Amino acid sequence: MELSSGLIVVKIGGAAGIDLEPLCDDVAAFVGEGRLLVLVHGGSHETDVIAERLGKPPRHVTSVSGHQSRYTDRETLEIFAMVVAGRINKSLVERLQRRGVRALGLSGVDGRLLEGKRKSSLKIVEDGKVKVLRDEWSGIVERVNVPLFRMLLDQGYVPVVAPLAISSAGEMVNVDGDRAAAAIAAALGADILVLLTNVPGLLRAFPDESTLIPRIPRAEIEGYSPYAQGRMKRKLLGVQEALNGGVRRAILADGRADSPIRQALAGRGTVVE
Amino acid sequence: MELSSGLIVVKIGGAAGIDLEPLCDDVAAFVGEGRLLVLVHGGSHETDVIAERLGKPPRHVTSVSGHQSRYTDRETLEIFAMVVAGRINKSLVERLQRRGVRALGLSGVDGRLLEGKRKSSLKIVEDGKVKVLRDEWSGIVERVNVPLFRMLLDQGYVPVVAPLAISSAGEMVNVDGDRAAAAIAAALGADILVLLTNVPGLLRAFPDESTLIPRIPRAEIEGYSPYAQGRMKRKLLGVQEALNGGVRRAILADGRADSPIRQALAGRGTVVE
Repeated sequence: MELSSGLIVVKIGGAAGIDLEPLCDDVAAFVGEGRLLVLVHGGSHETDVIAERLGKPPRHVTSVSGHQSRYTDRETLEIFAMVVAGRINKSLVERLQRRGVRALGLSGVDGRLLEGKRKSSLKIVEDGKVKVLRDEWSGIVERVNVPLFRMLLDQGYVPVVAPLAISSAGEMVNVDGDRAAAAIAAALGADILVLLTNVPGLLRAFPDESTLIPRIPRAEIEGYSPYAQGRMKRKLLGVQEALNGGVRRAILADGRADSPIRQALAGRGTVVE
Repeated sequence: MELSSGLIVVKIGGAAGIDLEPLCDDVAAFVGEGRLLVLVHGGSHETDVIAERLGKPPRHVTSVSGHQSRYTDRETLEIFAMVVAGRINKSLVERLQRRGVRALGLSGVDGRLLEGKRKSSLKIVEDGKVKVLRDEWSGIVERVNVPLFRMLLDQGYVPVVAPLAISSAGEMVNVDGDRAAAAIAAALGADILVLLTNVPGLLRAFPDESTLIPRIPRAEIEGYSPYAQGRMKRKLLGVQEALNGGVRRAILADGRADSPIRQALAGRGTVVE
């Protein structure tokens, strides 16, 4: 099921401070060179902004495993879907179309592009106590619709994927964009996974950018997890999942750079292989 | 470029009062019988609700040609895109997936599914005077990406289309869902176009539902336009455009019915052929 080699999966950050214009220039340049690309995006920051404006402020929690999460009740899921699949996805597609890129936006629910199990409750730590939150609508990608991706790539489309998935029962769920990108990269047999963020890569002493860790040998990745702060924990998990799934190289790189994808591929950032 | 015959294009209303559950049951039953379907939806009502909640109340205007329109400045366009491509589209796709339908949601910007010219200003009549509104982001569908539709239908997907289009310059624009459905039906060589709304069809004396006009011979459609009130004017225009484009039959029918598509195909509503 390998696609023609050279496929790159790029996750664009959902955090504040990422300028989409240079990123879209970069995508257009790559596509112009005949490279195969799949883009995955986030949307956490904009979802928070819109949710706040709609009178449904976000509730950020820390799971018992230490990951930062968003508590996604049904109303939050619907706002999340609206923002990621409507606002961010179409804004990216429009920018890419302006540059002549045959961008095609989908979310994981469309054609069951991304299937996953729904996690209907969340175990969190709050004020030092373990609590259980019900009515949770998140999940983890377990299966990727490879034929659908292949069909689109074969026809010259650049898939732009919003981080939603669908359960076997047909429930829409919110998924982590980094790990979704990792699952897609592994399933499609991608060469490279690039996770763009708003720091230069994994930092030994966050937030000091001069402490960037430039290389991590694949076998030693576990030893670096103590350096991962906040959302970086999940990115590192994504890197690990992609490499375990057969992806040759994963790069944590700076989405704020001028040519973020090109610089990542040139080795700027934290390269794991 | 004709698809296998029997294709039905159904436009689902964007007005209040439409229950999506029976509609989705109906879609699932049709797809289960092996019928080919394309769904197009609106979103005017929900866009108004969300825009209001976001502090950007909608501005409804009457064009010089007498059609009711939404003034779509850039901010309104972005809210419209968010609501139609994110909220309504994914909600429909999720409901259909729950019923085992291989629904795949797209907007007209995705893969240039629907191309159209941007109308960047709007001539309206207000207080009896003609005014020009700039910064308008709407358009009319001029070209349909038939190979993309065909590829999806061939693979057993049911396309669910949000009413956006893309200009040749790559600008996203808001389009009328009824006329978009008509353009799609004509381009794909559909047999039948069903426009569901929140009335039983074209009424001789709106809103008296007992005055339903059951049949209109194609050649006489112009003579019936005086009966069309409000949004019905544009639906009748869509019917005309579809028939001129080669669609055999167009039906204006009640989206509030129990089996709205089945009842429409059985001849309930206003049938034009």
